[in-house]
Formats: sequence, structure tokens, C-alpha cells
Amino acid sequence: MPMEPQDAGYEARVRDSFTRQAFMATLGARLARVAPGEVDIELPVREALLQQHGSVHAGAVTSVLDSAAGYAAFSLMPAGAAVVSVEFKVNLLEPARGERIAARGRVIRAGRTLFVCTSEAWAHADGRETLVAALQGTMMCLIGRGVSG
Amino acid sequence: MPMEPQDAGYEARVRDSFTRQAFMATLGARLARVAPGEVDIELPVREALLQQHGSVHAGAVTSVLDSAAGYAAFSLMPAGAAVVSVEFKVNLLEPARGERIAARGRVIRAGRTLFVCTSEAWAHADGRETLVAALQGTMMCLIGRGVSG
Amino acid sequence: MPMEPQDAGYEARVRDSFTRQAFMATLGARLARVAPGEVDIELPVREALLQQHGSVHAGAVTSVLDSAAGYAAFSLMPAGAAVVSVEFKVNLLEPARGERIAARGRVIRAGRTLFVCTSEAWAHADGRETLVAALQGTMMCLIGRGVSG
Amino acid sequence: MPMEPQDAGYEARVRDSFTRQAFMATLGARLARVAPGEVDIELPVREALLQQHGSVHAGAVTSVLDSAAGYAAFSLMPAGAAVVSVEFKVNLLEPARGERIAARGRVIRAGRTLFVCTSEAWAHADGRETLVAALQGTMMCLIGRGVSG
Repeated sequence: MPMEPQDAGYEARVRDSFTRQAFMATLGARLARVAPGEVDIELPVREALLQQHGSVHAGAVTSVLDSAAGYAAFSLMPAGAAVVSVEFKVNLLEPARGERIAARGRVIRAGRTLFVCTSEAWAHADGRETLVAALQGTMMCLIGRGVSG
Repeated sequence: MPMEPQDAGYEARVRDSFTRQAFMATLGARLARVAPGEVDIELPVREALLQQHGSVHAGAVTSVLDSAAGYAAFSLMPAGAAVVSVEFKVNLLEPARGERIAARGRVIRAGRTLFVCTSEAWAHADGRETLVAALQGTMMCLIGRGVSG
Repeated sequence: MPMEPQDAGYEARVRDSFTRQAFMATLGARLARVAPGEVDIELPVREALLQQHGSVHAGAVTSVLDSAAGYAAFSLMPAGAAVVSVEFKVNLLEPARGERIAARGRVIRAGRTLFVCTSEAWAHADGRETLVAALQGTMMCLIGRGVSG
Repeated sequence: MPMEPQDAGYEARVRDSFTRQAFMATLGARLARVAPGEVDIELPVREALLQQHGSVHAGAVTSVLDSAAGYAAFSLMPAGAAVVSVEFKVNLLEPARGERIAARGRVIRAGRTLFVCTSEAWAHADGRETLVAALQGTMMCLIGRGVSG
């Protein structure tokens, strides 16, 4: 079911905010796709992101899952709003290995204040993709608290 | 309640594994304290870790929460075991701001295969500390699968 | 993607175990559908299940979400295995009101020991259905510990 | 750290609301203790609450964990407010067996709208108590939406 944005300028708003998330640049993540209630982020795998067994660290995977979910929610918020993560839960399904991790955030319930999202992380390796982690969480819309984006 | 390590060399084992988590170095995190079932990690705050509102990104906070919880569990595992995160849930309580974030992982239930942990993130700013995030999650002990640490 | 049962007698095994969950009878829940990796449970709404605002209590909703997820996992386990819930996370999306709640459990990752599942609760009211809660959780397969089902 | 109630009549408010949770009566649960930000609920174990292996069903345990957490939050809300569960995560640590289950809800972060709580379930058997489940979740304060309690 496609969702209706409240603000026609949602994509520019999401892209602008993403460039201000310094941590996404630290990870090397890039914004791949923005649609109403749907945001995809890609994370090329490199040594600096790994844990001790050679997989991408669960925290790095969670970082892109969270940003994908947060921006999926943000795409549906009004102009001038800010988004913050309230909580999320992540199940790690398989070791996150391959050339890149794709995080796909989706809104499953859009409220006035709270947005519930899911986000999936798929590892791409040798032309195959594997679901490696799944997030379910809550994002909050803040209006008029001196922050935006 | 203090917990009993199965392996007297638990501290060296935790410290050695931590140095092999390249992502912890990328974040700039350091291992502060290792005791049986208890591990503290410190993360100095810097621009590269921030999100768009100037707080530490929830993913960076989660990364140290997860590693603190995972190593708290690992400290109680037998020599030769490996630890992996099964799942975790994080509540973000306050914006993570200040000079540094301290993550405190604790085991609340040590099984043979599954370890349940909590982990708290405290922000240190101007001599005050504030609880900014809380994790509850499950770690798994793997033995004899060709990985260790 | 359809999943492959290890035990051709999976449906009888699930149905037999469900009848031994006394708490499902206390709630008035019934097993609606059993397929490999997929189990649906229905809960007719009645006064005894409500909270103070007239909706079905989150705990009652969670009970059928958990059983649906657990039995979805159990349908893929070998004969003689037992299933226990390791953990779950539930987001409450809308007040659970109507004539009945349908819980749909699905396995998203089937391992040897751990099964990751999602479960959705849909409220049926006046011919419309509304997603009212979503669970993501982990089920464990126990073999040879003196319990089964 | 003791928490400050906004409404001196918090205990009567909690007790009154609890009696209107029909589902708590269905379970046979009783409100044991009410303090600011802290609520304990007791659940005598009986056949009607069990799952197929003879332990209390995870859903019944979650029901009292959720109510204890929700009322702990409600005790800190202003008069006229209503409380609803936003989400919770539960780890099942041990089989829930014994004469009774005691659920202890505690607020760890009281906001204006969102309250973050933990809740522990302890099984009492033969004079010993065992931690059997732990919840971490979010409760929401609703004001002026036509519901209260």
C-alpha cells in the first residue's frame, strides 16, 4: 500500500538531512532510494566495519537499519518536523558478509506523533542476496522544538 | 551477584577479541573494564559519530551497547568459544551528548548456549552523567565452528 | 517462499500441542490454519479479555501472537522436538477492538536451534480488518530434554 | 532514586484502573504494591494459565509484566491522563513455575508523553525466587482523548 506524503518536498528533505548525519559518512553509507514511507540505504562492506569474526559489526548493520527506518518515517512527516528514534529491536539472522549491505526501511503505521517501522538488511555477495537482519521500531515526530531534519 | 567465570583467562580473552573488532577502532571506542559478566566500554564523542541534530547517532550508541553486552557474556564463556549477537532491543531515552558515552554491559542470565544481557549507555557531560539508552538482548555461545573470540 | 517441513506429520503435531496449551482455552483462542512455517490463531473478543479502555489487553494480544509464532516455528521442527519462546518484541499499533483478533505467525529464518518469526495481529470489525500489533521474536528448538510438543 | 508523583491521588487512581482491567481478573492477578514509579502485581499459578510443557504461558507472564510496567508509568502521570502500551520486549529466562509469579514494574525514564519502563517476573517456588522474564518497554500518556485510567 503506497503512503501519502504530507509534504511534496519530502525527498529533498530526506536527502538534505541524510547529508547532515556525519555518522553515515563515517560508515560510508549512501542514500539509495527515497519514496513515501520507504527509504533504502546502501553500505559498502570494508575492513573498518567488521567485528572479530570478519562479518559487519551488528552495530554498523543496526546503524543503517535505523537510519533507513527513521528516514522512511521522516518522508511522511510535515515540513519543519524533526525525527528521532524512540526504540528499535533487531534480530541478527545470518553473518553480514559480502560486497554491500542494503537496508530497506518501511513505515507500517503512520501516526501523528509515533511511526512504527520495519527495516531489513540484505547482504549482497556474488550476485546473491541474503536477509541478514530485521529491525522493528518506533520513530517520533517532533515539531517546533528548535530542531528540524 | 558476582558471576563465576569458567575460564580464568577471561580478561585476556575479552581484550584480545576487542582489539580484533575493527569497527570499535573506527568508532574510537576503548575497553574500560572487564569483570566476570560485566564489561564497560567508553566512546569519546566526536563529530564523526553524530546524527543530524548534533547527538551521537543511535547506531553508534547501539554499537557500544552491543559490544559491552556481548563481551560481558563472552567473559563467562569457556576458552575456545565464540560469541555472536542473536538480538537486542534498545530504548533511546535522551539525546546522547557530552564528552563521552559509557556503555555498561551486564549478564542477567547465563545459560549454556544463550546469555541474556542488559547494557546501559551513560552520557558524561560537564561532570554529570545521564542515562541515554538501555539495551536488553541475547548473546549466543558457539563452540567448535571454526571461529573463536 | 514456502518452507519445507522436516516432519510430514507437522500439522497433527501442532494441533495436538495447541490443545495442550491450557492458556489458549482460557483465552478462548482457536487454531485456524497450519502450514509449513505459517500458523494462524483466532481470538474472539469478549469482555473477559479487555483492559480498562475497552480494548483487548496487550497481554492477551501478545499471547496469541506468541503462540502463532511459536507454532509456525514448531511446524518446521523435527518430530520429537519441543518449542520454547526465547524472546519477542511487540509494537501495539492501534486499539485492539472488534469481533475477533487474528494472529498470523510466520517463520522468517529457520535455523537448527533458533527460529526467527514475525506475527501480526489483525482486528476484524464490521467486515474491515486493521493491523493492531506486530511481533518479532525468537523461538528455540529443544530436542531430548524430556519435553516435547 | 524515588520518583515524584504529579498527582497525590496516584495510588487510588492506579487501584481503580486496575479493577477495570477485566483481563487481570480473568488471569487471577492482583495488585500487590503501588509506589511512585513502581508497581508490583502477583499472579497465582494455576492450570488455566499453563502452556504445553506445564509452565505459565509466556503470554500470561507478559500480561502481568505489561500491566505492572504500565501502572508504574501511570502512577507518575497527571490526574485525568490515560496510559497505553506503545511497545515492549520480553526475554524469557527460565520456565515460569511455582506457586506464584511476581511482576515488578519500574519507570526508568519519565517524559511528558513517553515513559520507559522495565518489569521483572519472579517465580516463587518452595520459598525460593527465580527471575523468569524481563521486559523493557514504552508507555504513552494520553490526555484529553475521551479516555482515562
